[in-house]
Amino acid sequence: MTQVYNFSAGPAMIPTPVLEKAKSELLNWQDQHTSVMEVSHRGKLFMDMINESIVDFRKLYHIPENYKILFLQGGARGQFAAIPMNLIGEKGKALYLTGGHWSAIAAKEARNFCDIDEVNILAPGDELKVSNLDFSDIAEQYDYVHYCPNETISGVEIFEVPKVGNAVLVADMSSNILSRKIDISQFGLIYAGAQKNLGPAGITIVIVREDLIGKARKTTPSIWNYETQANSDSMINTPPTFAWYLCSLVFKHLLNIGGLAEVEKRNQAKAELLYNFLDQSCFYRNIVAKNNRSLMNVTFTTGNDELNAKFVAKAAANGLQALKGHKVLGGMRASIYNAMPIEGVQALISFMQKFEQENQ
Amino acid sequence: MTQVYNFSAGPAMIPTPVLEKAKSELLNWQDQHTSVMEVSHRGKLFMDMINESIVDFRKLYHIPENYKILFLQGGARGQFAAIPMNLIGEKGKALYLTGGHWSAIAAKEARNFCDIDEVNILAPGDELKVSNLDFSDIAEQYDYVHYCPNETISGVEIFEVPKVGNAVLVADMSSNILSRKIDISQFGLIYAGAQKNLGPAGITIVIVREDLIGKARKTTPSIWNYETQANSDSMINTPPTFAWYLCSLVFKHLLNIGGLAEVEKRNQAKAELLYNFLDQSCFYRNIVAKNNRSLMNVTFTTGNDELNAKFVAKAAANGLQALKGHKVLGGMRASIYNAMPIEGVQALISFMQKFEQENQ
Repeated sequence: MTQVYNFSAGPAMIPTPVLEKAKSELLNWQDQHTSVMEVSHRGKLFMDMINESIVDFRKLYHIPENYKILFLQGGARGQFAAIPMNLIGEKGKALYLTGGHWSAIAAKEARNFCDIDEVNILAPGDELKVSNLDFSDIAEQYDYVHYCPNETISGVEIFEVPKVGNAVLVADMSSNILSRKIDISQFGLIYAGAQKNLGPAGITIVIVREDLIGKARKTTPSIWNYETQANSDSMINTPPTFAWYLCSLVFKHLLNIGGLAEVEKRNQAKAELLYNFLDQSCFYRNIVAKNNRSLMNVTFTTGNDELNAKFVAKAAANGLQALKGHKVLGGMRASIYNAMPIEGVQALISFMQKFEQENQ
Repeated sequence: MTQVYNFSAGPAMIPTPVLEKAKSELLNWQDQHTSVMEVSHRGKLFMDMINESIVDFRKLYHIPENYKILFLQGGARGQFAAIPMNLIGEKGKALYLTGGHWSAIAAKEARNFCDIDEVNILAPGDELKVSNLDFSDIAEQYDYVHYCPNETISGVEIFEVPKVGNAVLVADMSSNILSRKIDISQFGLIYAGAQKNLGPAGITIVIVREDLIGKARKTTPSIWNYETQANSDSMINTPPTFAWYLCSLVFKHLLNIGGLAEVEKRNQAKAELLYNFLDQSCFYRNIVAKNNRSLMNVTFTTGNDELNAKFVAKAAANGLQALKGHKVLGGMRASIYNAMPIEGVQALISFMQKFEQENQ
């Protein structure tokens, strides 16, 4: 088979050993002579599998016992609505730190459900740079403070955790979940759509501190009521069983390769390679401040739309897929999530060198 | 491989040719050398696939042009909330026809979002029998009338479409969608979770008449706003791409075997075989009125809990899986959705005969 590397921003690469295992047992799961997607979610074998998936996920992140882990439907965008409904009772106010496309959309959706204040955390200037993140003096007047630590479209990552005193910090980690070690206890709630680092699209993980559960407003749909779902093993209705199964295989895979310490090391090595190449090049450029360069989404441009389009097309013809930047920003974007091997980044750099020579 | 038959009520059997195709191309979809679950939902190949899936689904049901077909997340239970939010503006009233577990749950969830009246459509008596369904004199005072034409737990199916005059009729077809021909134009909205007849759990189909779109209340989560989703190819956020892909394969499979005329014929033959066997037996019984016996879920009991448990265990040991009835009702339930071949029903009947001889 031709070696291709898929730089899609999401749905994105899934580790090959996971896909191979899923393929091998697609029609005969656990010797049941039936597919995992055909069995009851309440059957013993399936329940054992999901309980193990929660143990594994806890292990990967060292999640304290006073946090619940929920597997829900509706994507991060569903949570944009569910979070204000759950964390604020009937009436309240939240602070949204915005600095990119997704944090802005989250704030926009939340406005339908509660009062919010919004603070842009991008410092003015030519480069994309996150400004001071100390909100400890104002945070406690809000029911929660929301931010997005990795903006997929611009390739901006926030490594420092915002200071919010005793306020509840909520993070949309859709595009950097399980990519590096974090201290869960700094957060009240973390959520993520699966389709970048967890598994296939269609399942959403929510890590929520227990004391935040139980305040949902009356008009919270039951499938998003954290209390109902926490009390029902995330099975108030039929969960996306196959997606959950794939997530469970991804967790096992990450533990097998050495857990998040190893994952983080690999992600840093890949990103460093690509950013170092970009920095020495006069042909390509990345406009994100060094401290905020995403480990997951590396954006770059030649500065010329026509040349960018040529780059994307030629790269695809060479097995380097889905490098087109988001339409909001243009240019190129290489998403190098957990499942992207360093060989993919090396192949990309080789291609970039060749393209530079041919087109400068 | 041992021949097993899976009578699970959902997630349920998926046609074997569909699973085999999915397996064969799991790591290399459309010669892209990547899995269908790893590609962007906005890429041309994926968009072509889903557009074709909508054409196929339209063809199967002869869906008129003035209906939109949406593929959403959250299951039927998500729609229990989304329907009142979308069909009633900020304030209104709906009529819920209840006669079983799921229609009652739908009514309960709807109460959080609008005023409702509820009418129990089960006639009193020893058998489960649906009463008069003419509501044309009162229906038009409501924003919509909701019912569930197949109650999975009790095995009660409503073949006659309720008369509602010019009112909007809404049907939860989660457990009988695509099982037989229907006249879509009698309905304002039809919805169904996928995990019985459409594909894997985690995707929900909504067929909605265009004039009902655009009335959603302000606090409708954007992923469930029919107008937003209809204007975005059901892609206001990343859809469950793999689940959608499997649904597309199921639609093709149903067209290949002859469309709904053939599907209905097969389903009737399977159900008739099983009900005829039950009717001649003095050992097993089914308490559903003949006119309301579900083609999809056949419930039966020996009348003895201990014997029922023995039946379920022994059947499983003989490759007849998941025959335990829902805990609400006890007894046994054979779910014989589209993907169950008649050989599965024949194998079940053979086992039932043997079990009867050994235990009467």
